[in-house]
Parts: sequence; structure tokens; C-alpha cells
Amino acid sequence: MSIQATERLENSMSDGVLIVGEDLCAEVVSRKAAFDAVEAVFGAMASDDAYNFPVIREAIGYADALYGFKSGFDRAGKALGLKSGGYWPGNAEKGLTNHQSTIFLFDPDTGLLRALVGGNYLTAIRTAASSSVSIAHLAREESKVLGMVGAGHQSTFQLRAAAERRAFEKVVAWNPHPEMLPRLAAEAEALGLAFEAVSPEELGAEADVIITITSAFEPLLMKDWIKPGTHIACMGTDTKGKQEVDPALLAGATVFTDEIAQSITIGEAQHAVQAGLLAEAEITPIGAVINGDHPGRRSDAEITVFDGTGVGLQDLAVASVAAAQAEQTGTAVRVTL
Amino acid sequence: MSIQATERLENSMSDGVLIVGEDLCAEVVSRKAAFDAVEAVFGAMASDDAYNFPVIREAIGYADALYGFKSGFDRAGKALGLKSGGYWPGNAEKGLTNHQSTIFLFDPDTGLLRALVGGNYLTAIRTAASSSVSIAHLAREESKVLGMVGAGHQSTFQLRAAAERRAFEKVVAWNPHPEMLPRLAAEAEALGLAFEAVSPEELGAEADVIITITSAFEPLLMKDWIKPGTHIACMGTDTKGKQEVDPALLAGATVFTDEIAQSITIGEAQHAVQAGLLAEAEITPIGAVINGDHPGRRSDAEITVFDGTGVGLQDLAVASVAAAQAEQTGTAVRVTL
Repeated sequence: MSIQATERLENSMSDGVLIVGEDLCAEVVSRKAAFDAVEAVFGAMASDDAYNFPVIREAIGYADALYGFKSGFDRAGKALGLKSGGYWPGNAEKGLTNHQSTIFLFDPDTGLLRALVGGNYLTAIRTAASSSVSIAHLAREESKVLGMVGAGHQSTFQLRAAAERRAFEKVVAWNPHPEMLPRLAAEAEALGLAFEAVSPEELGAEADVIITITSAFEPLLMKDWIKPGTHIACMGTDTKGKQEVDPALLAGATVFTDEIAQSITIGEAQHAVQAGLLAEAEITPIGAVINGDHPGRRSDAEITVFDGTGVGLQDLAVASVAAAQAEQTGTAVRVTL
Repeated sequence: MSIQATERLENSMSDGVLIVGEDLCAEVVSRKAAFDAVEAVFGAMASDDAYNFPVIREAIGYADALYGFKSGFDRAGKALGLKSGGYWPGNAEKGLTNHQSTIFLFDPDTGLLRALVGGNYLTAIRTAASSSVSIAHLAREESKVLGMVGAGHQSTFQLRAAAERRAFEKVVAWNPHPEMLPRLAAEAEALGLAFEAVSPEELGAEADVIITITSAFEPLLMKDWIKPGTHIACMGTDTKGKQEVDPALLAGATVFTDEIAQSITIGEAQHAVQAGLLAEAEITPIGAVINGDHPGRRSDAEITVFDGTGVGLQDLAVASVAAAQAEQTGTAVRVTL
């Protein structure tokens, strides 16, 4: 009996832990489903129906690894659990991704483990869904040029999700390592979009929407390079010290985020807040826009910034989609604990 | 093909996530192995080869549940991971244990999830191993009478593990709900030990070693009831506000613990420290005794107290034993993420 057949066999068991692997996640979680799940949970966070628990993040003093957990509970979506994992810089040499994530979902009614879900693909797609949600709610409708800063693994996910939100005609891109740009160019071509490698200054002058998705520790885009009406999603800064854009850019913009507590400590806004250029009270949770409690963009000239820091509830939201889809389609293994 | 046969089939795969269920844990983790694992990790903690990460514990505002994680890294034992779970007071009505735990072990070299291990049996056996380690290192050799305060699910595990450490002849027991004592009496009988239900005062007057394993919020044993030379393992207090013994008892004793940071905040010592009767510096990690850096008990008249708060590294230690045993005996399922 093949493992596939076994899966179907074990599937018929009514309880146990659902095992949803990386390949299955990629198969059953669409960009649309990820967008809807992330949008809904951002809304639930802003209405206090969902909250993230404190983040654990430890340099374990072994294999240069960073390890930890992001966790939370969404009462509205009945999602309870955590994403565990971290960063192992030596993995690439072993043929593994440096970022390793696994998501665990628990039944909020009993505390029983409900699903074990591979977290690598889902981390990429939920991060892309996050900037995509910000574009849907904050970018000008007539945005035509998408600027990409960064060309790593995540950048193609970001580009593909963003492209679905506005009728873009062209992608302009810059990366500190220009030799990585062909990956983005190929993705743009697949989407039928023109592509141009540009300088960061040119990128600022042309783009209507900009996504930064790097692991930079210094500003890559300066305030004066950015034209009025631009929407910028800063997606790379998730740690103290990391930075992608000029703090003055945030000071002159309307700033939104997934979670204010993270935005001001480990997100892009940490620098503007530390420099006294931005007050915590000036940052709006994007959930408030989603829920209709904040108008979002107020004019075509306004610059909007979305500080996407990445919260555990996003992971739980997309993992819940994966588990539900896998359960419905009968494609996941179940095991008994 | 039966599920058992499938297990053997999947077992031959060289990688993937090992699934070690509750029944298998009970089968492959002996009290001796749990004792050795917990003793070793307490030693590693005291020599800074192992450390616990901050504990997450949340009242989630749903189903009256407490939910959270205990986690850590033992560089010596190469154990990285967490125990997740909590307390669901409505579970008993559904035929489930109120306490629900699952343990996740990660490969510290790559961050890949290595094993998913049922945590309910292991929590009981690792907690029993903890008091048992304290008895091995701190109780008088000639201890004859074991006093048990508490008669819940965990108490039988405690009794059985303690009985292996000294040549006890008799068990004296007290529980706030005396109707629960027959469970302990049966366990004592099975071990060939005399059993007597007594008052707490009588228990203090007779016992050479006392284990408290309750969920009390006020002192059940007073200082004046305890005779010189007694060793007391306080195993029930793991939360702010819980309390099992008179703070003056700790003030007059030599106090040991698994982890000082927990002992003074959520352990039994929280009350003596808050009352100014005990200083943090007067508490010794039991690992220091295990490693030979502290003599432990200094006289036959000394009262020793072990404040067993319960740390994530204990869970990882026994789960590592479970995973290794299951792997060696080829009795666990493997799944691919």
C-alpha cells in the first residue's frame, strides 16, 4: 500500500492530529485564501477578538541559531496555537532553508493538539498576504508602477500577491545584490508586467506602490526620493536594529501596522519612534481600516506606510486554512497522540 | 495493511517527524530513565549548559482555559523545544484530562521538527522524578516514613518514584478530601508499604520525608509540626498565589529548587521571600548538589526543603528519552512535513 493510500486510510479516523506537510500547504492554501484569512485576523486584532501572546526569541548559543515562538488566540476564528522555529544560517549548505517554521494548532475547547502544519511555505504566503492587504486598503486605486526593494526568496511571493491588488503595468526593482534580480524579472514576465532594474532613487521617483523585503540594518530608501501618493509596505524589519527606510519618511507619512507593540519595538517604526519623529499614538492598526473605524488613505497626495512586523496570529490564520482544506479534501495524514 | 504495519513501513524512512503517543511514552520511559534524565538536566542547568526560556502562560478568556509554553535548550543533551498546553477545567466532563500537554523536540543543528511527543504521562513522571531526585540527594539515608500530602492523579506517581529512593517502611497520608485516600493506600499496598491516614499534625510528627502535591492556596503544613531532619519536597506550587506550607518552615530550613527564578516568583518560596523571611541568595539550585558544588544536607537535624516548580527542560529531557527509545525499538510512526 502506498503512503498516499495509507493517508486516505488514516484519514477516515475521526480524531487525532492532522499532519499537513509543506507540499500539501502549497497545494491547498491559495493566495486568495491567505489574503482573506490575514485580513480577517487583522480585523479581529483591532476589535480585540484576537490577541498575540508575548514573543519568545532566543539566540541559543549553538549553530548561530535564533529560535523562538510566536503565538496567540483568535476567539473569532477559534485559532489557538503557535509557530515555532527560527533561523539556522548553516542550513543552506545542507540543502535546507535557513528559516525553519512549524505551526501547531490546538483545539480551544479542550487543549488537544489538532494539527501539525509545515510553516515554511505558509510564512512566505502569509507575509505576502500582509503587504497585499495593506495595498488593498491603502494604495491609490490608479497605481500603475510597483517598486520592489529586495530580491530574496520572499520577494517573488510579495510581487505575485501585490500584482493581484492593483492594475499594475510595470515593476521597477532594486536589490543590494543586483545579480539576484533576474528571479524577480522572471516573475514579472510571468505576470505579463514590464520589468526594469533601477537605482533606488529612480525607484522612488517612478513607483506608486513600494514593497521593501530585505534584511537590511540601514535605510535603503530616503524620504526625498519618494513621490507624493506612494504607498510603502516595509516587510523586512522584524528585529531590533533592522531598518529599511529613512525614519523621516515615516514622520512625513501616515503610518499603519499589523501590531503597534511590535511596530515600535522590532518593526520599521522603532527608529522613527526612538528618534522622537513619530509617536506611538500616531500609528494605526490596519485592522481599524479593515473594520471601517479608520478611513485609511485620506488624499491622493498622502504617503502611507505599512509596517508589517509579522504576528503569530497570521501564521495561525493561514495554518487553519491549510488544516481545514486538508481535512475537507481528505488529503492529510492523521496520527494519534 | 494495518496501521501497525504502516507504522513499521514508515519507520524505515530515515527522516521525518517521529510521533510518540501517550501509550508509547508510558511503555518506553521507565522511572529510572526519567530519574536519570531529570537529574542530568538539573545538573546541566546549574553548570549553565542548559537554560529555560521565559514561560508563556495566558488565561485565554475562553473555556476558562490556561494555556502556554515552557521551553528551553540543553546544549549538553542536545534537547531543544517546548511543552505546550495548559488547563481546561471542563475537560473532565468530556472524558478528557483537564491538564493537556504536548511536547515538541527540534533538531538544534537544523531547526527541523524532530519529534511530536504526548506530554500527559511524561508530565506526571517528570514531576515525580523531580521530587525523587531531591530525595536521593537531600533526604536522610535512614528515612523510614514517607508522608504524602495530596491524593490526586499525580500523587501515585510521586509515591512510586519516592519509594525507590529510600528503604521506606510506612506511608502516612493526609488529603483535604479524605475520600480520595484509598487510591494512595492501594499504591502503598502494591509497593508492600504499611499505610495510615493521619492528620497533618500527625503526618509532620511521623514522617522523615514529606511530599506535598496539591493545588492549595494556603499553608497545609505548619513549621511546628515538622520534626528535625525531615526532607520536604513541595511539588504543587507552580503559580503565583498557590501555597502548600508555612513560610516560616522555609525560613528555618535549607531551601533547594529546580530553578531559582521560578522558585521566588511562582514556586513555594514566593511567600517566604515576599514576607522577608528568605533571601533569594539563600536558595540553592539542586543541580549544584548534583554537580558536587554544594554539600546538600549538612546534618541529621537539618530540615531540607525542595521547591519543585517544574521547568520546560525537564519535559524536554524525558521527551528526548521517549523519542530515542521509540526510535531504537522501531515502535513510533514517522510523518513527513
